Amino acid sequence: MNMILKPVGSVRSPLKDRKQAPKQGSEGAPAADIEMLPEYADALLGLQAGAQLVLLTWLDRSDRTALQVHPRGDETRARRGVFATRSPDRPNPVGLHEVRLVSIHGLRLRVEPLEALDGTPVIDIKPLI
Amino acid sequence: MNMILKPVGSVRSPLKDRKQAPKQGSEGAPAADIEMLPEYADALLGLQAGAQLVLLTWLDRSDRTALQVHPRGDETRARRGVFATRSPDRPNPVGLHEVRLVSIHGLRLRVEPLEALDGTPVIDIKPLI
Repeated sequence: MNMILKPVGSVRSPLKDRKQAPKQGSEGAPAADIEMLPEYADALLGLQAGAQLVLLTWLDRSDRTALQVHPRGDETRARRGVFATRSPDRPNPVGLHEVRLVSIHGLRLRVEPLEALDGTPVIDIKPLI
Repeated sequence: MNMILKPVGSVRSPLKDRKQAPKQGSEGAPAADIEMLPEYADALLGLQAGAQLVLLTWLDRSDRTALQVHPRGDETRARRGVFATRSPDRPNPVGLHEVRLVSIHGLRLRVEPLEALDGTPVIDIKPLI
């Protein structure tokens, strides 16, 4: 089966590496821009500033071989399976981010808060329900 | 960049095709089983019955070329970009499902409600936060 993801855009953020980034968007993450690829312009019809969205990203700096981690990287805590955590290290490192759409200008979406790093590929955008 | 998803399990459900399936889990979807692949057993450590989870699936019967759709397939409604809808037809058909973990026995997770079809590949499980 073809389960190959296609990037539809990418993140432009002041966050450049994992050490800088909060673990969750709600923990003080900044606003960021999503730069969409031109071939997906038509897929943005109906998106309006103020909307609550779920952004899906590909966390490309993750370790896909990890099956267990210490929660929040805290080695004093017992290991847990990655499916019982939100660690970016997991077999399919798809990031889920609840964001507010601050503005949309052509192919550029301003969103907040977003803990994803600069350059992270965006794979999907969905309205929050 | 390698953005190839690996199945980590698959859905066992009474729902066999899109016509049968509700559009959202909250619209009367049944319980279903997730059969995990043995190589991911260690990644389940810490998952407990009663937990609220987000299940990510690969909606393998979707149209990846669709950029706009009629919301809920209703042709009397104006077309919208797929990123402004929850249509399964989209460039990267990753399904997001909020479910309750009813029980876990070895590699088999019982969850509800789930509108994904029988045989749908599961790509990730995350705790809801």
